Amino acid sequence: MTIYGMNPHLKTHTTSDVRKENIGKNVTLGGWVHYLRDTGKLIFVQLRDSKGLAQVVIKKDAVSENVFTIAQSLTLESVITVRGEIIGHEEAKTGAEVKPSEIIVHSLAEPKVPIDITAKKTKLDIDTVYRFRELSIRIPQNVMIMTIKSETARAIREFFYSRGFTEIFTPAILMTATEGGADMFNVDYFGKKAVLAQSCQFYKQAATAVHEKVFGIIPSWRAEKSRTPRHLTEFFQIENEIAWATDEELMIIQEDLAKHVVEHVLENCSHELQSIGRTGLKIPSLPLKRLTFAEAKKLASKLGHDEPSDEDFSTPAETALSNHFEDPFFITHYPTHLRGMYYEADPKDPSITNSLDLIAPEGIGELSSGGIRVNSYERLIERIQKKGLKEENFEWYLRMFRYGMAPHAGYGLGFERLVRWITGVDSLRETLMFPRTPDLATP
Amino acid sequence: MTIYGMNPHLKTHTTSDVRKENIGKNVTLGGWVHYLRDTGKLIFVQLRDSKGLAQVVIKKDAVSENVFTIAQSLTLESVITVRGEIIGHEEAKTGAEVKPSEIIVHSLAEPKVPIDITAKKTKLDIDTVYRFRELSIRIPQNVMIMTIKSETARAIREFFYSRGFTEIFTPAILMTATEGGADMFNVDYFGKKAVLAQSCQFYKQAATAVHEKVFGIIPSWRAEKSRTPRHLTEFFQIENEIAWATDEELMIIQEDLAKHVVEHVLENCSHELQSIGRTGLKIPSLPLKRLTFAEAKKLASKLGHDEPSDEDFSTPAETALSNHFEDPFFITHYPTHLRGMYYEADPKDPSITNSLDLIAPEGIGELSSGGIRVNSYERLIERIQKKGLKEENFEWYLRMFRYGMAPHAGYGLGFERLVRWITGVDSLRETLMFPRTPDLATP
Repeated sequence: MTIYGMNPHLKTHTTSDVRKENIGKNVTLGGWVHYLRDTGKLIFVQLRDSKGLAQVVIKKDAVSENVFTIAQSLTLESVITVRGEIIGHEEAKTGAEVKPSEIIVHSLAEPKVPIDITAKKTKLDIDTVYRFRELSIRIPQNVMIMTIKSETARAIREFFYSRGFTEIFTPAILMTATEGGADMFNVDYFGKKAVLAQSCQFYKQAATAVHEKVFGIIPSWRAEKSRTPRHLTEFFQIENEIAWATDEELMIIQEDLAKHVVEHVLENCSHELQSIGRTGLKIPSLPLKRLTFAEAKKLASKLGHDEPSDEDFSTPAETALSNHFEDPFFITHYPTHLRGMYYEADPKDPSITNSLDLIAPEGIGELSSGGIRVNSYERLIERIQKKGLKEENFEWYLRMFRYGMAPHAGYGLGFERLVRWITGVDSLRETLMFPRTPDLATP
Repeated sequence: MTIYGMNPHLKTHTTSDVRKENIGKNVTLGGWVHYLRDTGKLIFVQLRDSKGLAQVVIKKDAVSENVFTIAQSLTLESVITVRGEIIGHEEAKTGAEVKPSEIIVHSLAEPKVPIDITAKKTKLDIDTVYRFRELSIRIPQNVMIMTIKSETARAIREFFYSRGFTEIFTPAILMTATEGGADMFNVDYFGKKAVLAQSCQFYKQAATAVHEKVFGIIPSWRAEKSRTPRHLTEFFQIENEIAWATDEELMIIQEDLAKHVVEHVLENCSHELQSIGRTGLKIPSLPLKRLTFAEAKKLASKLGHDEPSDEDFSTPAETALSNHFEDPFFITHYPTHLRGMYYEADPKDPSITNSLDLIAPEGIGELSSGGIRVNSYERLIERIQKKGLKEENFEWYLRMFRYGMAPHAGYGLGFERLVRWITGVDSLRETLMFPRTPDLATP
């Protein structure tokens, strides 16, 4: 298979090739000056590329005058090509370093980068990190988080593709609210008032009448002013909706998915996980624990959060439950009045739904929310009326139920929340290259 | 591997199992009543699911009274479960049909579906198709287009994943225009004026300083009032940006990608391609033809479109060029004044860029646009000034070039345009479940 992104003039190898086994090889490396020390007679450069770091040592008496002069001019974050030989060096991490015969400067960075790219993220001021996000994403720990995120997406997609699911692409610009009408961003659509999708709920349901089993990693927007580490205004959901499925099957799919993703990441990102200090991630034991809403209420009470049995869990209660378990777990059978109008009530007890939330451990909380959907036009009308919503706001959505909808079920699983759990980072923001919160819309 | 979406009570097999080899088997099928004929003594049903159609024949004297009564009540698009035996039937397409012992109605459709789901799409009024899009997506030809689209996405992602590219997720809500400032949708972001991304250009460039090789299938929005079959207000771009890459490498990647995608679709969707009448799709012969902008101008002139050499191709000229070739082809070296400010001018001749468009054959026209990017802060400032743009609108974007950007190149390839070429459909709209145009924002 062709390896792209190499260029005989600019880059033939990556920093990860600078290791003992390759001593004696001539290489052309391209990357960023990550670290720089000039002792007068010796200039020490750490070169960074997407594969990591490599040492380049420029000794005044071992290189040409030209190379040494160029090396003296370097600044942090400058982009260079280094041509030279891999030589042994016991003290270097990989047992090897590069002795350059040529250095080409492609982009000489101004001195004093506004953010220290070499810093451990815990040492940095959080506002500065996001103010200069176009630079702070270069911090090796952040690179690794994004690499793990890409591998997570890959594992998710391969899971669904290989199991016969159809990937769907749904609209962002809507004329209809999908989640009840609050907290939406308004868009001017050629003079008409439109909104950004809070979810693809209605559209993925429509798609079950076409493909039966659908999925997507789909952007959603909520204009919530919540300033918590658990909220973003722009986020992605792993959306999954399936005709004929039961609530039990939704749990089996999510268990299998969680296991598959963790296995894939452990296998492909062990170096990254180690580097960011994520040692606790392990393959969950299946089946995952299932608690009913009532059981979870009792447990929360035992854990010191005695809350009304007809209200949703408060964040502290959910966090306490989340901290109580080692693996993700399900809370099932939420009361009907706590779920959206598209959730089907249990035929035997209409006060509860055959619904489920997947909760991540380690205090992270809710990962996904789903359940069996209403598939009858009459019951949907009932639910809309009971919720105090207006039928006329759901014109096309209601119409599709008049012309044949299969029993179906589904869930939305927060992609960034999943990545947060996998990487163990403190805040959802860290899982995005360019996060959006009420205070943050640039870069 | 577990097969999801099956349910012992509602569906154990799909319509594609109703074939000669399975005669004698007892099956439970779930699906939609696609076609219905009642002769009094015999009710003939075509059951549709995501795998196709199957015949269910209910003979009054061969089934229970109950089954016959239920069958008599059926309407088009009703959702049913049919339990029964697969029996041979010479006249059925697959040589088999289902003799039901039980029919369960899950959703009885109202009579007179607003759109004929059995119609060939050419027989339908185009406005009705999109007005009732939540129903018209069920038309088998449309199902197949979306299935091919999903397989196209799969092939694209597998191509990039397996070649070491990192998938990126970029923001939709921006404070900065990426493509010069015109034709943007405005969003109210907590009282501040924001816009929907016209492209992820700046963000994918930022990501080359992190991962070096990035890709994504990323939504973009343009508030263009163009009412042509070639335009959408909401669309996806296959985005690809690569540090160290040359313009030649951009062409090689796109050739390899086009070949990989066509091979994958031919291998996995032969039934769908045949059913929608797409017989012309063939694996392109590599390398794809390359014409310089100047050569393409000459050819267009020969084809009857003599146009100024310093202007972009008119749509008729591009269409004529597109119709002239059997495979996709590249037009390279566009004049600098015709490209965005982030395109690098050729050092030897600053009036041209090392850029390229990939043009689809069969009159479809432009698929992708890309080239070598500016990586120098000073040259970027120059380009911004020459374009008459304002530096202060590019604050964070400019800043990242002050702190080290590698030489890089990239392109954006219209996902829907690619799907249009692969499926051979007449309009871009047909490649989306729920398209958005100036006149169309619902369903």
